[in-house]
Amino acid sequence: MKPISLTGIKPTGKPHIGNYLGMYRPALDLMKTYQGIYFVADYHALTIMHDPETLRELVYEVAAGWLALGLDPDEAIFFRQSDVPEIPELTWVLSCFTSKGLLNRAHAYKAAVDENLSLGRDPDEGVNAGLFNYPVLMAADILLYGSDVVPVGLDQKQHIEITRDIAEAFNRTYGPVLKVPEGIIQENVMKVPGIDGQKMSKSYNNTIPIFAPEKEVRKQVMRIVTDSKRPEDPKDPHDSTLFTLLSFFASPERLEEIRQLYVHGGAAYGDLKKELANLILAHFADARQSFADLMNNRGYIDDVLAQGAQKARRMGQPYLAAVRKATGID
Amino acid sequence: MKPISLTGIKPTGKPHIGNYLGMYRPALDLMKTYQGIYFVADYHALTIMHDPETLRELVYEVAAGWLALGLDPDEAIFFRQSDVPEIPELTWVLSCFTSKGLLNRAHAYKAAVDENLSLGRDPDEGVNAGLFNYPVLMAADILLYGSDVVPVGLDQKQHIEITRDIAEAFNRTYGPVLKVPEGIIQENVMKVPGIDGQKMSKSYNNTIPIFAPEKEVRKQVMRIVTDSKRPEDPKDPHDSTLFTLLSFFASPERLEEIRQLYVHGGAAYGDLKKELANLILAHFADARQSFADLMNNRGYIDDVLAQGAQKARRMGQPYLAAVRKATGID
Repeated sequence: MKPISLTGIKPTGKPHIGNYLGMYRPALDLMKTYQGIYFVADYHALTIMHDPETLRELVYEVAAGWLALGLDPDEAIFFRQSDVPEIPELTWVLSCFTSKGLLNRAHAYKAAVDENLSLGRDPDEGVNAGLFNYPVLMAADILLYGSDVVPVGLDQKQHIEITRDIAEAFNRTYGPVLKVPEGIIQENVMKVPGIDGQKMSKSYNNTIPIFAPEKEVRKQVMRIVTDSKRPEDPKDPHDSTLFTLLSFFASPERLEEIRQLYVHGGAAYGDLKKELANLILAHFADARQSFADLMNNRGYIDDVLAQGAQKARRMGQPYLAAVRKATGID
Repeated sequence: MKPISLTGIKPTGKPHIGNYLGMYRPALDLMKTYQGIYFVADYHALTIMHDPETLRELVYEVAAGWLALGLDPDEAIFFRQSDVPEIPELTWVLSCFTSKGLLNRAHAYKAAVDENLSLGRDPDEGVNAGLFNYPVLMAADILLYGSDVVPVGLDQKQHIEITRDIAEAFNRTYGPVLKVPEGIIQENVMKVPGIDGQKMSKSYNNTIPIFAPEKEVRKQVMRIVTDSKRPEDPKDPHDSTLFTLLSFFASPERLEEIRQLYVHGGAAYGDLKKELANLILAHFADARQSFADLMNNRGYIDDVLAQGAQKARRMGQPYLAAVRKATGID
């Protein structure tokens, strides 16, 4: 079998082009050389998402997103995290080999603490144990199948480091039971700006959704923040969110033309935004159609996910059994 | 069906008379009015026990101990925690509704921190996430079956309080899904001193084992700490570990005679220790035989635990399903 590459996505927001460029596309590209494992991380979402209707809806949207963007469920192993009870069981076992200090230093937790402190609150105010423990759940996600690689953005490097630490601690105690995975740091696809110029992220509310109604996609693109330069003014393309976003979707020839307009004058932001919206809608035309069809056929999504969970469980069960045996639980 | 009472015991030490008086016996007594659920908490043990052979052995000893002391596996639901994957799954869900502050204040974690601080070490040195999270696992143990009551010693009162807090937080979010259990505080059977006068506990290495070879039981009893008073000296029975231990096993008439010897002179510690050892060995004669037989028939223990796990899972699955549905996971 090919080596395994694993990618999960949390259903806490609608798929956007930052997800696509930074996650979906590179993860799907890896299918050429790896056995891909892809999952909808609903148990991760539960750390912050306590609205059942929204969670249910987003699970479908994320699953449909994967499929619409080209995931082949016959080739890939594609499932919903909560359909694989071996994951939470392995999570508990791994927690017994996870130094609490590791979790104290995890970025998401530290960010919550820093925010609390800056507001003069108790450091742990509003922090639940799921948020604190999510790196252990993530380690279980990865280690259950003996994953070889995990593609991560630079800002997620810590996840794979924590997973490696946990696996190594377990192996030091019991011998080489768990495969210690490698991170594939995807530096070139990382920096997708949102419409406000910050990193595109649902947390910043600055995304361009892939599957929203056309009007909404256009509206978001038109809201991209630009400066007050007139069309005839020369502009720096390196300092332009709009130019960066165009660079992902325009042909190399057209992009070069646009660059010249930036440098020498002649780039009208309004026109370029319309062009970007058209490029995005054209790029995702098939995927958007496919997404709409899938969302009208949720029974099919359920079936695909259920079959994927069967495959994932068959694959994970021998690893969990080896872990249980090593610890003396079995 | 009768209301449910639940008791787990961690296989981290051999059953001793402190366990018997404080846990096994009162828990088994509750079978008269409750449906008893009893389990060997091996996933709790894993937070501190990283030696697979010892863990395996202690799981058998604790299971055989329950059976030898009178647990009827046809009446009770009796199983090994790690045979019920619904428990770690519910643990994850509950962690998303467990304020981290609750766990910061849990006794076992605070004790570890205090010890580290007193030694000038990092507060979390040597603390693993399993130890930190064990109150959430315990909440899942309890809440999975809709347990009505949990018998606890005064020093375990916090466990049930944390469990109630978690259940109430979940119910505040989603409505009344989880049954909020009551603790039954068993104050009268709490204070079983070990041979050194501290609370009898494997942590203090001061236990009198129930199922050890006769010679070892006698040896431990003879090591009970007494003062240097001579037999003819008057003594205070209220201040005597030996008298307290005798009070659990001597008949009321004989205990009154011994009290008189204490108060008026005539109590020889050596003789009374021999008498206590005989009383203990007589009290547990049948159980000790039964335990020896069971430990020679581990296949039977395996079968009993496997059947119990089936019952526990059948009972827990509807609760987990309701929890998953409430959260939007299903």
